[in-house]
Amino acid sequence: MAKRDGQLSLGAFLLHTGHHVAAWRHPGASDSTGFSDFVHFARIAENAKFDAVFLADGVSARVHNVEAASRKAHSGFYPFEPITLLSALSAVTSRIGLVATASTSFSDPYNLARQFASLDHLSGGRAGWNLVTSADASAAYNFSRDAIIAHADRYKRAEEFVDVVTGLWDTSDDDAFVRDRKSGVYFHQEKVRRLDHRGAFFQVRGPLNIARPPQGHPVVVQAGSSEPGKELAARTAEAVFTAQQTLESSIAFYSDLKGRLAKYGRAADDMKILPGVFPVVGRTRQEAEEKFEQLQALLEPSVGLDMLAELAGVEEVRTLPVDALISQLPETEGGKSRRALFLELAARENLTLRQLYQRVAGARGHWQIVGTAAEIADELEERFINFGADGFNIMSPALPWGLSDFVELVVPELRRRGLFRNEYQGSTLREHLGLKRPSAQSAASAAAAE
Amino acid sequence: MAKRDGQLSLGAFLLHTGHHVAAWRHPGASDSTGFSDFVHFARIAENAKFDAVFLADGVSARVHNVEAASRKAHSGFYPFEPITLLSALSAVTSRIGLVATASTSFSDPYNLARQFASLDHLSGGRAGWNLVTSADASAAYNFSRDAIIAHADRYKRAEEFVDVVTGLWDTSDDDAFVRDRKSGVYFHQEKVRRLDHRGAFFQVRGPLNIARPPQGHPVVVQAGSSEPGKELAARTAEAVFTAQQTLESSIAFYSDLKGRLAKYGRAADDMKILPGVFPVVGRTRQEAEEKFEQLQALLEPSVGLDMLAELAGVEEVRTLPVDALISQLPETEGGKSRRALFLELAARENLTLRQLYQRVAGARGHWQIVGTAAEIADELEERFINFGADGFNIMSPALPWGLSDFVELVVPELRRRGLFRNEYQGSTLREHLGLKRPSAQSAASAAAAE
Repeated sequence: MAKRDGQLSLGAFLLHTGHHVAAWRHPGASDSTGFSDFVHFARIAENAKFDAVFLADGVSARVHNVEAASRKAHSGFYPFEPITLLSALSAVTSRIGLVATASTSFSDPYNLARQFASLDHLSGGRAGWNLVTSADASAAYNFSRDAIIAHADRYKRAEEFVDVVTGLWDTSDDDAFVRDRKSGVYFHQEKVRRLDHRGAFFQVRGPLNIARPPQGHPVVVQAGSSEPGKELAARTAEAVFTAQQTLESSIAFYSDLKGRLAKYGRAADDMKILPGVFPVVGRTRQEAEEKFEQLQALLEPSVGLDMLAELAGVEEVRTLPVDALISQLPETEGGKSRRALFLELAARENLTLRQLYQRVAGARGHWQIVGTAAEIADELEERFINFGADGFNIMSPALPWGLSDFVELVVPELRRRGLFRNEYQGSTLREHLGLKRPSAQSAASAAAAE
Repeated sequence: MAKRDGQLSLGAFLLHTGHHVAAWRHPGASDSTGFSDFVHFARIAENAKFDAVFLADGVSARVHNVEAASRKAHSGFYPFEPITLLSALSAVTSRIGLVATASTSFSDPYNLARQFASLDHLSGGRAGWNLVTSADASAAYNFSRDAIIAHADRYKRAEEFVDVVTGLWDTSDDDAFVRDRKSGVYFHQEKVRRLDHRGAFFQVRGPLNIARPPQGHPVVVQAGSSEPGKELAARTAEAVFTAQQTLESSIAFYSDLKGRLAKYGRAADDMKILPGVFPVVGRTRQEAEEKFEQLQALLEPSVGLDMLAELAGVEEVRTLPVDALISQLPETEGGKSRRALFLELAARENLTLRQLYQRVAGARGHWQIVGTAAEIADELEERFINFGADGFNIMSPALPWGLSDFVELVVPELRRRGLFRNEYQGSTLREHLGLKRPSAQSAASAAAAE
């Protein structure tokens, strides 16, 4: 294949004990979800020189529809909260990036700016914030609201939220805190400033009461693929985590999103697009297929429906006939892009509801490849060199073996092709991803000039 | 002296590079405030078998009155945010408790319940939450409010907040998550329940989407000594961190607070009272005094006034004549107990404003002892055996040497007297402090019976 300059980025998506919804039942998966498991997973990824580990999150358990079904799945439960877990992992890793998901709908910008700044200090510049707007209706009920916030309003709040957070990170200059013992000057007054933000959702004076993060800004990651989601990403995101099934849709999404950057004064390289991929690797195609079938056999129908209801934000799937073809799903205020993706997939592959949940039980709407290392490397390379991706978030079928398989079989193949690093070159997540470090002074001058 | 049964608890209060406001200028203090410093401090305390390390916090920098003064002090800046810092420390310590301060006025109960539950899981049951209501007016401006929340309202919100948090910790039973691979049952539906809280400040459905913490509840710590503060503590706190200058006030406070427990159905042992103490230890009295004078010599007047303004919530001290006696300070909606304590201290010792800030620059309103190990042990023992304290929070003058001095000189003296443990007996903070583990089932039955 023709060569595209540069190398691709790899993230390790760590969800429970594997990305397949039945992974926890697999005899080869970690049989707990303790901290030592996550240390093990993170070290596999760090030893392989991955750019980052990536933690999903949600702020509700989905046991409000009390049915026997839910007890057979994670149902929104997490072993740890991501910011605390990554803080702990920062102490036992040294190079890998640490990306935590946090919601703009159900957090406060001052607290969140501070915790991510702190994680960036703790880790020496390895923090990333995956900004989500929380599409799950059940979250609202945990935060003194009686209904899900409408999709458009969630994105308006997110737009303002991210400005407050990045603004707070810029309320001190990198060299503000001198702690000069002789003169007694702890910090330079003129290098610390208020934010004085007054918006529709937030009024925040600042400054943030923690020094500017080592990376300037922890890397801002975003995942929404709806129209408001893409605009938010184009203006503010530095890495985009997206679900794309086909080469065509990957290229279209990549070109669409990168094409939106210029109007915000940004270059194509200011954002990395990292689709999720669910790779099941075997030494032969048959071995890979057998691994996948072993997971599929552990899938309970109720768990499959539960997952569809959750990801598409459409509770009604629980009551639809499972063996009828899917042509439509109700409109929702939940996550719009995943719902559209499921409909497309069902139409393209002519799937019944049952076939749909089986089809997505592993990748959960992301791209799925079952094959040999060479076949998987071929597919990743194809998307990379055709500008369908700048890298990938690896969603291991079950942990740790799914990640170990990828590291032992696929990574060497990518290296042989010159597509992935042998050693870390930089020390921060921003450096791993090839992103510029933002300057606080220029942000302050831009604000002053307005 | 007569013996009181049992041993005292010790906490290590870790503030910047020392508790004296000028500690950071001391040549023997750590010259950075990096993570490795905190690892070092925590390990000194853990090697000495302390019950816990304790981190203060605030959610604003105090640079709103832009004057040259503030740049000479920390002014509300912190090197790390406490929950993230303690999460990182959990990975490199194994026995010591980890207590983080967090505000009920400027946090959300679902998020806070979740982060402390997560810290408790990460640390194997070593988490504690020091509940504060944020007396500093400048915090409000960072959270979309245009004025400080009135003292009474802060405490009403705190009362409801702590009920929601402990309620969320009880939304699953200890044995709810079975993850039974064979049957496919991830959790027992009947051992997980909603909270369905509907109050004046919060509506929270639950359940919390993380398993019940190892300790049942992370230990709830509280510090307020005002009337509403004492009532909140009597109903909900398991450890109380208080500033008491004299033996008499210690005994009065101890007796007052423990006397309030019965009406909430609690026993005297259900709460541990741990006053702060600022010990400056020398091998001789003269050496101790010289150590203290060395710190005092580094104190800038503006920094002293700044600290008084902050702790008493009275900005006006900056404009009062520094060499006049203090007899009154303006009323405030800030922290009431520290203001009263300063006035009492000034009256008892006949202090000018200048003398007052010098007097409290080290202990910041807490008890200060400058002397030999035997003298300090005598004083601690006296308060302990007379039921003025169940233990102490040690506020080291400068770190690490202030803590090392205490550990090397005073701790052996306490051990010789049988007042402090030689080894950890338990593995959780609750066990170190001698506190019962709350049952989720009994909480649920109590709620159902209402």
